[in-house]
Amino acid sequence: MIIVGELINASRKAIGTAIENQDAEAIKGIAQAQHENGAHYIDVNAGIFIGEESRYIQWLIKCVQEAVKAPCCIDSPDPAVIEAALAVHRGPAMVNSISLEKKRYDALRSVVAGTDLKVIALCMSDAGMPETADARLKIADKLVNGLIQNNVAVENIFVDPLVQSVSTHPDCGMEFLKAVAGIMTAFKGIHTICGLSNISYGLPHRALLNRTFMGMAIARGLDGAIVDPLNTSLMAAVYAAEALCGRDDFCGNYLAAYRAKKRGP
Amino acid sequence: MIIVGELINASRKAIGTAIENQDAEAIKGIAQAQHENGAHYIDVNAGIFIGEESRYIQWLIKCVQEAVKAPCCIDSPDPAVIEAALAVHRGPAMVNSISLEKKRYDALRSVVAGTDLKVIALCMSDAGMPETADARLKIADKLVNGLIQNNVAVENIFVDPLVQSVSTHPDCGMEFLKAVAGIMTAFKGIHTICGLSNISYGLPHRALLNRTFMGMAIARGLDGAIVDPLNTSLMAAVYAAEALCGRDDFCGNYLAAYRAKKRGP
Repeated sequence: MIIVGELINASRKAIGTAIENQDAEAIKGIAQAQHENGAHYIDVNAGIFIGEESRYIQWLIKCVQEAVKAPCCIDSPDPAVIEAALAVHRGPAMVNSISLEKKRYDALRSVVAGTDLKVIALCMSDAGMPETADARLKIADKLVNGLIQNNVAVENIFVDPLVQSVSTHPDCGMEFLKAVAGIMTAFKGIHTICGLSNISYGLPHRALLNRTFMGMAIARGLDGAIVDPLNTSLMAAVYAAEALCGRDDFCGNYLAAYRAKKRGP
Repeated sequence: MIIVGELINASRKAIGTAIENQDAEAIKGIAQAQHENGAHYIDVNAGIFIGEESRYIQWLIKCVQEAVKAPCCIDSPDPAVIEAALAVHRGPAMVNSISLEKKRYDALRSVVAGTDLKVIALCMSDAGMPETADARLKIADKLVNGLIQNNVAVENIFVDPLVQSVSTHPDCGMEFLKAVAGIMTAFKGIHTICGLSNISYGLPHRALLNRTFMGMAIARGLDGAIVDPLNTSLMAAVYAAEALCGRDDFCGNYLAAYRAKKRGP
């Protein structure tokens, strides 16, 4: 499972404050904690700072890369911000994200073309969020083929089929799961990823819904997640799910997590 | 989700002792607790009492039916015991279980033929436990068609694809899940059921593995489970999974369980 640690996001109060105060030690500490707890990529997002987003995301990347060896996941809908971030990032970053929205696609296509960047590709078009698995697959097909034609290796593409809340869209859980299975079957070597917490929006005990859905998605082939790696009960569900799906040789990662007391409640 | 409460099993020490002491109040209390916590059927098993199994299972059924309105799930591999149990059970019971093992199949076929009994059909033949989803589907096909030809309604059949432990059979989780999906697709109106705790045999923190696997199986269509309904974290996973899969209108059961504090840790 490829884990993207989501905590360094300016919309979280502690991070917004750390950015404003240019408190590098705070950012470094959170980067290290996430990396030690299983994050392969460290998401960086400075989206709340309008007009300053490029400058601040560059600073976040410098902090993170001084603290850990993991690459960053550059989280912005703005192609100019992504380009500014890539200008200072050492090694191949993950770009979060491209979509089939024409303006965003056209601007980012040339940035990622022919590179070894990892690219998160959202199943979103100018027609809005897709409702069904089929609609997601149609967007994924266009996006993935477009990226491949632009010399992005299929192994570097992470499709996010996008979840909505089951409280308002009762079928969206199953449609998402079918989309994950369909994408993993259609494109050999591709990855799927999601930030799944939207699934539980508007319902109580969201952590229970999120970790249950994580297991379901892993069972359909999901192999990436944008999560809080310090959330032990969610990470425990990830380790358990991979063991249950035969994706953990001799249950080794599960047993190691158990011994390290990272198994959650 | 159709829940079979598994607690009244003589192999559990408290139950074995209650049977030996003919402590009807103890049995009734456990039947009531399971029913109040969501069990639609109350499993009764007196299998450890060799030579006395029929007499004791009849006593268990009388106790349970004096205590709750839910029918029993008659749990024995012995056709003679099942017949003895059915002789005293009021209303249509669930029979646990028939299989494709020739001796067991031939003896039980005539017992269930043309009745409105619910029948658990294990994906087991004289060749032993199947390893792959395909092998499970082949057995299920023979069993289900055999039962239908004997005038058992498809809606009364609960196929158990059988889980093994992922610690010794790393692929068995995925093969089980594929079998559930295949059975639910192949036979419209059928049910699938399992006692899933074998999946975690030999591994630590079994409760985590069991509840994670429960969610995965529900996402593939599982609609029955033989479980401890007093296990709040497992039942919470059931309610969460049904809401996530669009099988809980307006998330009503999930919200009710949450309000009743049956949501687990």
